[in-house]
Amino acid sequence: MAAAPTETDPFLAACAGQPVRHTPVWFMRQAGRALPEYRALRGDGSILESLTHPELAAEITMQPVRRYGVDAAVVFSDIMAPLWATGVGVDIVPGVGPVVEHPFRSEDDLRRLRPLVAGEDMPWAGETIAMLTEQLKVPVIGFAGGPFTLASYLIEGRPSREHQSTKALMHAEPELWHSLLQRLVDLAVATIEDQVAAGAAAVQIFDSWVGTLSAADYDRFVLPAVTRFFDDTRHLGVPRIHFGVGTGELLHSMASAGAEVLGVDWRVPLPAAAERAPEAGALQGNLDPAVCLAPWPVVAREARRIISERPAGVGHVFNLGHGVLPETDPDTLARLVDLVHEETAG
Amino acid sequence: MAAAPTETDPFLAACAGQPVRHTPVWFMRQAGRALPEYRALRGDGSILESLTHPELAAEITMQPVRRYGVDAAVVFSDIMAPLWATGVGVDIVPGVGPVVEHPFRSEDDLRRLRPLVAGEDMPWAGETIAMLTEQLKVPVIGFAGGPFTLASYLIEGRPSREHQSTKALMHAEPELWHSLLQRLVDLAVATIEDQVAAGAAAVQIFDSWVGTLSAADYDRFVLPAVTRFFDDTRHLGVPRIHFGVGTGELLHSMASAGAEVLGVDWRVPLPAAAERAPEAGALQGNLDPAVCLAPWPVVAREARRIISERPAGVGHVFNLGHGVLPETDPDTLARLVDLVHEETAG
Repeated sequence: MAAAPTETDPFLAACAGQPVRHTPVWFMRQAGRALPEYRALRGDGSILESLTHPELAAEITMQPVRRYGVDAAVVFSDIMAPLWATGVGVDIVPGVGPVVEHPFRSEDDLRRLRPLVAGEDMPWAGETIAMLTEQLKVPVIGFAGGPFTLASYLIEGRPSREHQSTKALMHAEPELWHSLLQRLVDLAVATIEDQVAAGAAAVQIFDSWVGTLSAADYDRFVLPAVTRFFDDTRHLGVPRIHFGVGTGELLHSMASAGAEVLGVDWRVPLPAAAERAPEAGALQGNLDPAVCLAPWPVVAREARRIISERPAGVGHVFNLGHGVLPETDPDTLARLVDLVHEETAG
Repeated sequence: MAAAPTETDPFLAACAGQPVRHTPVWFMRQAGRALPEYRALRGDGSILESLTHPELAAEITMQPVRRYGVDAAVVFSDIMAPLWATGVGVDIVPGVGPVVEHPFRSEDDLRRLRPLVAGEDMPWAGETIAMLTEQLKVPVIGFAGGPFTLASYLIEGRPSREHQSTKALMHAEPELWHSLLQRLVDLAVATIEDQVAAGAAAVQIFDSWVGTLSAADYDRFVLPAVTRFFDDTRHLGVPRIHFGVGTGELLHSMASAGAEVLGVDWRVPLPAAAERAPEAGALQGNLDPAVCLAPWPVVAREARRIISERPAGVGHVFNLGHGVLPETDPDTLARLVDLVHEETAG
């Protein structure tokens, strides 16, 4: 029998820390309001409702692949979708974000969080991914919300700068907190299993707001749950990307949870990230999305800085440090993909 | 002539990295909505207008000193006050924050930023501090807004999560950006000079939102201006505290700017801060303000963790990692002051 073939898809190879023909690029929120074709197609309707139309969701997912030439397609969805699909009253309010009808307050609210039966509750999610894998040559990335971030939306009822109600509940009622996180991890595991079954070649866990915690609180209140997520999805055999914003002091803990790839925001230089998280086989990031609003020479300079600084011996998936800002000029992102490909071809 | 006496005031001694009889404590935004006596006294009027009444501002400043037994009084003011006093249309909108009538957009807007003549533009500021130094036994801390943070409010026109217009202007028009920052540093220097002349024994520069920048952007776009601020205020001979939120990757640069004390938010453990910023003679922080909403045993545990973890050989001023949250129970803060004093008495 021959040795296992070297992975030749740049995105999957980079996730595995293997040699690549060029550094792969994708952008968080690449399918979205920065694209005129997205705005034209989506109109003003509910985002969550739009997800139930697989052809629409697949088309939106493919728009940035065509436009930018990125190396992976991230499925058009929302981290609140599984909660919504299981009956939690939530809406994505334009200009605000997720707004939860009845914020999570007490033990009683646990009963409102029932397990996800993906094929029944959100059959459209798998159908969208199945369509995409049929039509696309690049890998499709599925995703789910991380437990702290989903808990924060449920508890605060809306986006929050301080996450104070979330932290107050976490500290005052640690058993209730851990029960809540267990349910949210169950939800994430079921979501991801369904996405991989439908053909997703990689997944990302967005624990976007976890960087608001001190390392001591992260280790006590989030790490056990997120470690269970990675334990329970390891058998799926796809690379898992673990991402949050402002996580400079958490990278060591986050990497210990078990992801193959660690997503890093723009605040932490990649060499510092590699030093703090030696377990990470690959890093993803980390151009400041706001830099993409600058004139092209600035974007090019910053992209080159990231490429030249990145540490040896660890895979690299080029991405922004957070989602594409709606004001971004699509041409900038198209040029950025070309620049990364050219600078790293070898 | 005898040797200079060892400073015996705990706050000033800690700022100088000298031995203390107990670790000093104060809280950012200790004078504010968490206190019922503050809400009773302030009512619903404009914060900025209230600053023009020295007796009122002094009384508000003294309320937390009486209630909590803190080791320093931070003058009741607002970082936007000098801009407001020099004619920039700005209001502090309850539940929102600073809202600027005509956001800063171009070269023309520079003309709207005139130099501060503190005794003429805001005579009440000095009068308030003079009253306080007469009536209080603890040092009075003055403060000013840091240049990035003031620039962000001017450019965005209101509080912002992404600071994207600020970064866009910074990258697209670096000369205009540097001119803007020079004016804002001039304003901060004049503010601080006036406060020290009136009796402030220490000052803090709040560059609260600078942690949104990558280290590369900080070094290029903010460090020169803030270094000039510290150069130009060194002759005043008072300790200067340099504070921002989410500055884990900036601490080395921030410390190089020249402050005596580096303020650290709750994300960065104090030993990590000392390692990244060996120039800092003292550190200030860093209990998560949201922890103060938790039951007392949690607050006590976290305060003890910070005290036990702190590095040797560097001064320590105990504080929160950001301002007191309005929902905080004042009794918790009073107990916290007692706990820090008792645990560190020696």
